Amino acid sequence: MSPVLRFSQQARRSADQAIGYLMQQAVENVSCISLAAGLVDEQSLPVETTRVTVADILQELSAGQRVLQYGTTQGPEPLRRVFRSYLASLEQRDDELRDLPLSQIVLTTGSQQLLSLVTQALFDPGDICLVAAPTYFVYLGVLQSAGARIIPIQTDEDGMCPSALEAALGEIEDRGELERVRLVYVVSDFENPSGISVSAERRPKLVEIVKQYSRDSRILLLEDAAYRELRFEAELLPSLWSFDEARDTVILSQTFSKSFSPGIRVGFGVLPQQLVKAVSDLKGNEDFGSAHLNQHIVARVLKTGQYATHVNSVRAAYQSKRDAMLAAIDREFVGIPGVSWVRPKGGMYVWMKLPAHIPTGFDSELFRITTHVEKVMYVPGELSYPADWLARPRCEMRLSFGLQSPEGIREGIARLSRAVKAVMNTDAAEVRVCPS
Amino acid sequence: MSPVLRFSQQARRSADQAIGYLMQQAVENVSCISLAAGLVDEQSLPVETTRVTVADILQELSAGQRVLQYGTTQGPEPLRRVFRSYLASLEQRDDELRDLPLSQIVLTTGSQQLLSLVTQALFDPGDICLVAAPTYFVYLGVLQSAGARIIPIQTDEDGMCPSALEAALGEIEDRGELERVRLVYVVSDFENPSGISVSAERRPKLVEIVKQYSRDSRILLLEDAAYRELRFEAELLPSLWSFDEARDTVILSQTFSKSFSPGIRVGFGVLPQQLVKAVSDLKGNEDFGSAHLNQHIVARVLKTGQYATHVNSVRAAYQSKRDAMLAAIDREFVGIPGVSWVRPKGGMYVWMKLPAHIPTGFDSELFRITTHVEKVMYVPGELSYPADWLARPRCEMRLSFGLQSPEGIREGIARLSRAVKAVMNTDAAEVRVCPS
Repeated sequence: MSPVLRFSQQARRSADQAIGYLMQQAVENVSCISLAAGLVDEQSLPVETTRVTVADILQELSAGQRVLQYGTTQGPEPLRRVFRSYLASLEQRDDELRDLPLSQIVLTTGSQQLLSLVTQALFDPGDICLVAAPTYFVYLGVLQSAGARIIPIQTDEDGMCPSALEAALGEIEDRGELERVRLVYVVSDFENPSGISVSAERRPKLVEIVKQYSRDSRILLLEDAAYRELRFEAELLPSLWSFDEARDTVILSQTFSKSFSPGIRVGFGVLPQQLVKAVSDLKGNEDFGSAHLNQHIVARVLKTGQYATHVNSVRAAYQSKRDAMLAAIDREFVGIPGVSWVRPKGGMYVWMKLPAHIPTGFDSELFRITTHVEKVMYVPGELSYPADWLARPRCEMRLSFGLQSPEGIREGIARLSRAVKAVMNTDAAEVRVCPS
Repeated sequence: MSPVLRFSQQARRSADQAIGYLMQQAVENVSCISLAAGLVDEQSLPVETTRVTVADILQELSAGQRVLQYGTTQGPEPLRRVFRSYLASLEQRDDELRDLPLSQIVLTTGSQQLLSLVTQALFDPGDICLVAAPTYFVYLGVLQSAGARIIPIQTDEDGMCPSALEAALGEIEDRGELERVRLVYVVSDFENPSGISVSAERRPKLVEIVKQYSRDSRILLLEDAAYRELRFEAELLPSLWSFDEARDTVILSQTFSKSFSPGIRVGFGVLPQQLVKAVSDLKGNEDFGSAHLNQHIVARVLKTGQYATHVNSVRAAYQSKRDAMLAAIDREFVGIPGVSWVRPKGGMYVWMKLPAHIPTGFDSELFRITTHVEKVMYVPGELSYPADWLARPRCEMRLSFGLQSPEGIREGIARLSRAVKAVMNTDAAEVRVCPS
């Protein structure tokens, strides 16, 4: 008999994550139209821009050699300066954010690596993270891997509710556990999955509440701004980070995966000074620096203005796909009672709620019919809530318009509505009530 | 008073690693000739090859778009097939290793990420890793971060001694701790730091011993083959992995950072099937896939044969630098009693032992003189042993011929010999004995 391989506790906590099952389903059902995958719009990827940029970077021999050498763990300073200017443009700051020390910026492999490093730096098992409900389900997996306790905070059409955050922190304090709270996690713009942004009014309030409750130990706020650039009608808002004047509370996570290319895999974070060394030490262990060539590609397109031009075309592409999805839903779901959805002003997702008796999870009739009969895939909404939250809603769906063409979106939504109608008819007898 | 930021235990274990201090010294002493940095020879970096390759990859629009899209967490299968063929060529296997399932291959951000992921997957604090003495000091940091107990195993000119490994495992078993042993770590070719390779005879023996002691639970052997391609006179040996016929014991870690470009940051691992899911789950949390574009660059140069041509030129470059360093040492250290060094047949390092009364650590007189007076830097040998091993040698140095030109190497060695002579003269009175 072969001796058993023993895994670490972290590895055991990382097993059986929803994303794995979902990707497996996608692989096994290739004929499905995927409204599940968080992949980006392939048509708008910057092939020519990247080709020319790499050619320019590698034009001159010795400059090219430096780019193909190791960078540094945090990313080279001159590149971090370019990323800081870019951030200043997003924040609409004319001063180029020159008062922000470059030491507080770290370049990562997409923003996912930043989320992972920050979590590793802060969490021991049993430590607490507060998250919007619903929230980015892959990050829930990262928290689960770290053994975190995850507390969902009510959200509405203006994002995480400050009063709910305050109440939750107050309750935790009453239980004597405030010092176990490490982090509040917020996707600030066009959230994955809900499509909702935190309103301008709430941004400073959320930061203020986190600071107020930083009593015995500091609580940090992780602002995931992955979709910030994919805005359609919405106005450009200053980040939550910009309201953290002492720069000791908010971690800002930015990425070029959605707005430029995920295959280049460049993101960056702005960290409180106190956190820099821990994240950098951990990153040193992990890879001592992300791909240096790729950092130069992004820095160069930022400097030449090609990035700004590209982002405009990306926005137009996603906006038309958003429009296609909303129009299809308006058409296909008309007359189905109890269905509602968010009309996002940016991002890649439409969040849909079904009637209380139509669960959407992996073991639901709807998931079976969509995957195996109608051949369309979505992300079950329950994945976007902490798995141990018994009261989590079970009748929601994340629908992505990122990958599919407008035609694919139309066909996918038609298939989905047929599946919903089929479940409604067959399940009319045995009604299962779904918590809203 | 600002509330304190509390870090995870892992973050605290990751702090104050030697590499950080060393890099800080390098930054603060820019006029030093660095024989410390593990950077690669910049002159031989493949600027033109990479430029042309990227242009080819991004020539055709829709193929280019797929490359700029997300890949997969393990790396796309067609690319893993190319990497498997490459491995077959290293192993001199005509069958292209077609019996090796592609599922056992995972593409990573350099090989460092593989070392980190494997360690995260296997180690809880207090678990045991056996390592060659000396060994790759950055990996010691990864183990320290995981809270591992590290046991040094005697090595000689043929690499890790099988009898010493067997004795150590026997002792651990006698203490009733065999089930805490997770891993044996071996740099198989031209080891960083010693320059020594595990001999052909010892390779199957080490694998066999690890299998023998896999009783209650499986012990794995992590073979770090980072320098395998940088061979000069040495013959190409089959990996330790190749002797693991059941493919359930050896993890083979390979990288293109040394042989092609560290700025592209592509490595890969071959894992026992049992380990694949845990590593893939952890990688999913960390980045859900390394940069896809970069994987295509390496796969393409492998397929076109440009890689093979390039490696030949890289070997020639390092060989001439190795020759320059050995010639300089022969010249500059002649007549200094008690100094010895390894003559490596590949890799990037010369390992030097000083007399027993000349410590080389950060707090030593020699380190002070080299860094601040003579302006040359080396890596203190003691970093390459477990920090809690009281009997570790203190009078050794790792000298890298990777980064410097032959002229820089000659000047660096001249400076180093002056520093050694200066310390010998001044310290003659107060002799501190250094364990050998």
